[in-house]
Formats: sequence, C-alpha cells, structure tokens
Amino acid sequence: MKIELNRNSRTSLVQQIYENLSDRIRSGILNEEECLPSIREMSKNLEVSFLTVVKAYDLLEQNNLVKRVQGKGTFVKSHSIKCEKSKNTGSPYKWQLSIQDYLPRTHFDTHYNSSDHSLQFSLAAIAPSLLPNRYLENEIHIMLEKNPLILSEYGPIQGDLDLRIAMKRILKKQKINVSQKDILVTNGTQQGIDLAARTFIGPGDVVIAEAPTYPAALDIFRSRGASILPVPIDKNGIRTDILIKLCETKNPKLIYTIPNFHNPTGIVLSNDRRKQLLTIAQEFQIIIIEDDPWSEIYYNEKPPNPIKSLDTKGNVIYLKGLSKTLIPGCRIGLLTADGTIFNRLVSSKMNADLGSPLLTQKALYPLFQSKRMEDHIKKLRTALKIRRDLVIKLLKKHMPEGVEWIEPKGGLNIWISIPEKWDTKQLLLECQKKNLSFLPGFVCFCGEPETNHLRLSFSYLNDNVLETGIIELCRILKEFLSVTPPENSRLIL
Amino acid sequence: MKIELNRNSRTSLVQQIYENLSDRIRSGILNEEECLPSIREMSKNLEVSFLTVVKAYDLLEQNNLVKRVQGKGTFVKSHSIKCEKSKNTGSPYKWQLSIQDYLPRTHFDTHYNSSDHSLQFSLAAIAPSLLPNRYLENEIHIMLEKNPLILSEYGPIQGDLDLRIAMKRILKKQKINVSQKDILVTNGTQQGIDLAARTFIGPGDVVIAEAPTYPAALDIFRSRGASILPVPIDKNGIRTDILIKLCETKNPKLIYTIPNFHNPTGIVLSNDRRKQLLTIAQEFQIIIIEDDPWSEIYYNEKPPNPIKSLDTKGNVIYLKGLSKTLIPGCRIGLLTADGTIFNRLVSSKMNADLGSPLLTQKALYPLFQSKRMEDHIKKLRTALKIRRDLVIKLLKKHMPEGVEWIEPKGGLNIWISIPEKWDTKQLLLECQKKNLSFLPGFVCFCGEPETNHLRLSFSYLNDNVLETGIIELCRILKEFLSVTPPENSRLIL
Repeated sequence: MKIELNRNSRTSLVQQIYENLSDRIRSGILNEEECLPSIREMSKNLEVSFLTVVKAYDLLEQNNLVKRVQGKGTFVKSHSIKCEKSKNTGSPYKWQLSIQDYLPRTHFDTHYNSSDHSLQFSLAAIAPSLLPNRYLENEIHIMLEKNPLILSEYGPIQGDLDLRIAMKRILKKQKINVSQKDILVTNGTQQGIDLAARTFIGPGDVVIAEAPTYPAALDIFRSRGASILPVPIDKNGIRTDILIKLCETKNPKLIYTIPNFHNPTGIVLSNDRRKQLLTIAQEFQIIIIEDDPWSEIYYNEKPPNPIKSLDTKGNVIYLKGLSKTLIPGCRIGLLTADGTIFNRLVSSKMNADLGSPLLTQKALYPLFQSKRMEDHIKKLRTALKIRRDLVIKLLKKHMPEGVEWIEPKGGLNIWISIPEKWDTKQLLLECQKKNLSFLPGFVCFCGEPETNHLRLSFSYLNDNVLETGIIELCRILKEFLSVTPPENSRLIL
Repeated sequence: MKIELNRNSRTSLVQQIYENLSDRIRSGILNEEECLPSIREMSKNLEVSFLTVVKAYDLLEQNNLVKRVQGKGTFVKSHSIKCEKSKNTGSPYKWQLSIQDYLPRTHFDTHYNSSDHSLQFSLAAIAPSLLPNRYLENEIHIMLEKNPLILSEYGPIQGDLDLRIAMKRILKKQKINVSQKDILVTNGTQQGIDLAARTFIGPGDVVIAEAPTYPAALDIFRSRGASILPVPIDKNGIRTDILIKLCETKNPKLIYTIPNFHNPTGIVLSNDRRKQLLTIAQEFQIIIIEDDPWSEIYYNEKPPNPIKSLDTKGNVIYLKGLSKTLIPGCRIGLLTADGTIFNRLVSSKMNADLGSPLLTQKALYPLFQSKRMEDHIKKLRTALKIRRDLVIKLLKKHMPEGVEWIEPKGGLNIWISIPEKWDTKQLLLECQKKNLSFLPGFVCFCGEPETNHLRLSFSYLNDNVLETGIIELCRILKEFLSVTPPENSRLIL
C-alpha cells in the first residue's frame, strides 16, 4: 500500500498515516476483514520508522477502525457503513493494494444515506410526494411522441440549445445577464464543482472553503491534491476579515462558497460580505465557485442576488442546481462563467463525459417553458416552510438542555450543536440502531473537525413520520447525553 | 499565461511551448483574435530565453495558427474550428490568462463533428433512422406511467439495481461472470476511461496506448499529467513484443486498449495477443483498460471473448458502451472490475457526479428485458454491413492510386491512408469547403503523429447521401493529391 506523505507538513507523519488509512476504511476503499500490511512492510514502503507505523496503527485501533490479531495481523473492522460494493477483495487481488491511487477520501455522507433507515434525516433531498412527477411524466410523453429522435441523438457538448436559452431566462431573473453561449449544462452541481477542480486545481494549489462546508466538495478538492484552508463563518456567512489575511499570505487560487442557505448551516451570506468577497477575489486574482443548490427555497425573504450578478471581471464560476427541486431523476445543473475560464471548463466537460445526456436535458425543458415551474416552487416553499416550523417547534419542546440549533431561513437543513464534549459520530451509531440517520458534522470540516454538530435534513421524510422522527431523535439524544461518558465518546480524528 | 515546462525532457523547450500553445489554439481554449503575451513577458514568465519564445512563435506563425501585427502583438488566427463557446474574452478577463490549468489538450475530434457538414464522416455514431426510437419512446411512456417516482428519486451511486442485474446477463454472454455488485453504471465509456484515469493516473505515471488510438482517451490521460507511450499495432492488434520491452524498462501503470474493431483502425486483437497482453499485465502488475464500444457490431464473425473473461487476478477494468447502438440520448455504459480497484472506481464516481441519472438508466432497461434488443442488434449489423460493403466498393472504384485502407470486420470506421508526404489536416480544409468532414488521423497519435491517415465513419450518414459523400471525398482527394505541393502541406505538429 502506498501513501503519499508530506514531510514538510506541520501534521505529523503518524497523523498523516492514520488519517489516510482511516479515510480509506471509512470510505469503504479498504473493506471489512481486509488485512493491512505488516508494520515492517509499511515502514519499509513508506520509508518511515517502525515506531511511526506502530503509533498510527495504535490510533486506528483506539478509534475502533481495526483489530489486531496476535500473530496474524491487523484487520479492518466493520465501520458501520452500509455499502453494496464488491466484497471480493481476497487473495488473488492482494497485489492491487500496491497500486497507488489519487483518491484520499470519498464522499462520506453517502454512507449515511442508507435507504434502510426509515427515519432518514441524512439526505438533503425533497420528498418525492412534493414533486410534480405526474405532470412531468405526461410532458415527457408528449415531447418524446412528437420527437423520438431525442433518444437517438447526442446533442452539443455544451448542452442542448433550447435548454440553455431557458436557463438564460432563469439567470436573468437572478440579475445574471449572460448569453446561452456562456452556459454549460452539467450533470448536477456536483459535476460543476468537479469540473472547476479538475480544470484549475492541482497538487499544492490552495483552496479556501467555509468551515463547515459541503463534504463532497472537500473530497473533490482533496482528490486534486489541493491544500484546503478553512475560514469560519458567522451569522453573516464567511468571515471576510480572516479570509483577507489568508489571501495576503497563502496565495489561494480558488474560494468555494455556498452563499444561500449554506450547506450545512443554513446561513445566508449578507450582501455586504458578498461584495467584500468579490473585491478580495478581484484584488488577489482568485476564482470563486459560487454553489447555489437551493436559493429558490426561501421561507421568509429572497436571499440577496448572487455574487455572480456583481462579477465584472470574470472571477466567479456560478453553479445552479436545477433538478433537486423539480426532477431529481435527471441530475441537471448549469454552470456559467466568463472568458477563457468558461471555455476551459467546457473543454473539461468534453473530457469528463462528452456532454450530458440529451434525454435528461429535454425532460427538464417543458417545466421551464411553463408557468408551472413558478407555481410548483411556490407550493414547495410553503410545504417545506410548514415542515421547518414543525421541526423547530418540536426541537424547542423536546430537545434536552445544552443543545442548540440555527433556525434556517431557507434550504433543507438544520444545523444542530450538542455540548462540545460529546461526539455526534457516536450518537449516530445509537440512532442507526433505531433506523434513524443524520449527517455527522465532522465530515463537513476540512481542518480540525468539530465533532459536536449534526446536519438534519427535514425535506425528505414524508409528513407522517417527520414528527415521530424528530421526537425519537430528541429522545435518543437525551439518553445519549445522560449516560455516555464524554471521555470515551470523543474520537481522535 | 503559464505553461508547465519539463526541462529534463528530450523535447526541446521551443517545441514544448509551441505544442502547448498550438493545442490551446486548436482546442479553442485560446480564441480567435486573442492576443498572446509579448515575447518579453512570456520569456520572463517561463524563465526561458528571448530566442526560445521567438522560435516558438515563429513555428506558430508558420503553421498558420497566429498572425503577427507589427507594433501590436501576436494574435490567434481563425483555426477553422467551429465552436459555439463564448467569444467574450476581452480586456476585463485578461487576468485569467495567468491562471494555470490542468488541461493540456482537449478532445480534438469534437471540433470536426460540426453539424454544419451535411456529409459528416467524422462522427462515429449510428444514423438515428437505424435506431428503435419509436419502440423505446413507447416503452419509456409505459414505464413512467407505471412508476413516475423514477423522476423524483436519485438511485444508488453505483447504478440502478435492476439495470445492473440486466447488465450482468449481458456480461455473462461474453463469458464475463460477475455479480451485480461488481458493476458500475457510467455515463458512457468516456466517463469510464475518465474514472479509471482520475483514480489511478497522476503526474509522471506511465500509460501505454495503441498508436493510433481513440483521441479523447489521450486527452484524458494527458490531463492527468501522464507520460503516454505509444505501442504500434499490426493486423493482429497491439504489438506485444514491443509492449513487453517497454514494460521491462518503463514501469507502466496502465495499458489502454480497444481490442474489438479498434478505434480508429477497425483491427481485432487476436486471441493469442489477448492472452499475451493479460500475461504481461499480470507479470508487471499493470492495470488494463479494455474499452469495448461496439463489439456487437461484427460483419463476419464474432470477435474473441473479452480479455476480462480471462482475467483471474483483477488486472482488467472492462468498459462496455451500451447506448451508442441503442439509445444514444441516454449515454449509458457499464464498468466492471475486481477487488479494491473496483471499489476505488465507485468512490471516484461519487466524486464525479454522485451517480448517473435514474431516468436514463431506467429508459435503457425495457430493451434489455426483451428479445427486442437481440433482434435490433441483428438488424443493425445487417444494415451497417450493407453500408460498409457499399463504401468499400466505392473506394475501390473511385479512390486515386496510392490511397489504401483497412477493410473493417466490424465497428463503424474505415482507416484510410494517403501517400506519406501528404497531410490529411490540409485535405480536411478542402473537404470542409464542400461540407464534408472526417477525423484527421494525427489526433489519434500520442507520440510522433502520422499525418497521412483519416478515419471515415460510415454509420451516421443516411443511406441516400452515403454514396454521394464517398464519391465526393474521392474526387476532392484526387484533386488534392494532384495539385497540392507536398512541401507546404505538411504541418509541423
């Protein structure tokens, strides 16, 4: 097994080895029961001392990720991650462990989205019952009947022209004035983040991310070998005062931000901060990825205009998710940017997949053409606001003392903090026993993780189980806080 | 503008700068009329001598890629590439040129697939009239009517379970015995190649590719910073005798091969060579990407079983394109591999896009369930064989002396070679004037490109224009060979 070590890092070699292995175990890259290389072998491979490996393996054992069997070796333990991947990693494939990969950590939160959990608060998606399936099904039928050739053509790499023209109108409503030539259709915002990273980020490039942030974005930047610097957020969003200091000394290339109903905290970046962020990016010639998964889902007032609407020099890559609130089965998003930054992103899209499927693009189109979309979004806002209000009411009523949360003004999540000594990863294990899941907060941090938060997505469960689920969570948490000794519950991460 | 230079390379710095810039111009990353940095600026940025930059710019000018305007600067010339990308790369965005990217060259051949050309021999796709659109449209309607929730769910990252079970059966027919757990659904084989590259290939890793090969695969490996070594092919496929010598000295990590009706030459890798290739990979612990875009389209006999069917140690990542011959608008392919190599690829898929859209996966499913698919493929083979026979007959009749081609036993392409002194890139310019396009062969080479080949795809044009097109191509080529002075036609690449 090969691990890339950075001998100039402030992180100790023990910690680097531990982190690399624990990430692989938690990501399911190393499977249950798999035998790690011997200490001797590992120390030889990595050119580190025997003792360094011993300490790293000790940490793995302390954190319950491996078990040692005297005279046999160190084996990966079950890590309570349900995944369906191949378990067949037995002896004929042992040689594969020596193949180095460029995949330091992968999307943690998918492991918490097991569909086995009937009380699923981990998935930031909309309940299918709130989506206009029947209407869309009918529209798709009419469209394909009229033009079955949609099924047999590839369409332009940049995206279907009709769809891009419709997207242009959507952008215009957000005060982003661009031509259809400046729009790239993506397979959802995840691909948009990935395209930006694969085009502009390489080993050692500095990326700034909010702390906490969307964990899958961290995975992408890590896979590009980026050095990720966290900037904390407060009630107005990313702390631009801290950001500017980092820019002065660290030469960042890219800032990743989610200004509207930030994932996971739900916070909105204030208008002033938006301007400051852009000014900083312009001054230091930094690219901003503005990720906008659900700005249309506001419960009080519309969030401020996108940073992109203020962008005169082409610093901002704006990503808008479109299918989540309409037709998740299609996974469609849009990307807009300017100048050669845009052109280079289109070229990356060619490399990635030669363009999004025409069927999913066309399936989205009828909605964009009609007033139906606005009506649907309006209804959806109302339905989700009712859920949010219910959840907040229940939290107030049932949560034990010392537990805090941020009431979101939009979006799908509530960020809940338990007292600092406790760890939500441990809490999750308790919850999973009761078929309840959430996203443990530690996966959202790129630097030193805070372990006492959790993200609760209230949009996916059906109405009838939402109340049961929240009451159950409060009950489990109350018990957890009353009996679990904090000393043992804290994992070293 | 930043260019990564390798000062230890055998390629001169002049040539490196020239290649980097010409790739950017041809890929449309640098736009028409854009001004290159001044010679002074460039020499300072890249820390090379003034004269080195002068020589590189001279080469660009000689190759008609830039024009110099006395006292104003060096401007990118029109490069006869039709692309719709943003042209707005004017002064506010000038700073973007200093942003380094990781995109050395992008998919050349898409630039030759302009839909403006009525006689399009450049696109290796099937004419929509040969595909079962109406049948599929109806099946999709029935399916969505029964289960409109398909539109509002995400489905597993690894791919829809029903589809993977159907794929398992398809693989079994090819003597690849795997479980549905060992199958990953991709957005076409392009994404499959990309997933393998992003997972296992990084800067300096050695990749072996057939010469010539599929150009978009080269683009992907280049974007990962790979060092790509070409291995020539003969009538039995990749020259394993040369391959083994490279493996002994160059420590390759990955071999990319298209064993069935190889793209672009149409050659089939013999059974013996398949075994040799696998033995070499096993001995040197190398990963094989086995790319199978159209093995079902054979005109005489079925090609030998996939290399994957012989793979006992998990060396082979097998990629099968599925939508090209059935439903291109869905872009669906499958990937199968073993052990942790497979698990790591699934993790990469999470990073890339969180999974393929459920709608496109479900749309493919009805065909797989019925006998209809076999019937369709049978009919398609017959229709394409008639086309191939017609094209070969016309080539024999109308091609000028000195032009040669390989008669393909399957697939969608014919590889044509004109006398060595001539350059098919120049020929393409003549053809484009007559609305005819093909893929110029030089894009298919990773090493020293051969410039006297072209790939003619005979599957996309409708029957009624196929004959006209071939006769027209022969006519233009005859004229081209009779008047163009070879000295000037040869571009330095």
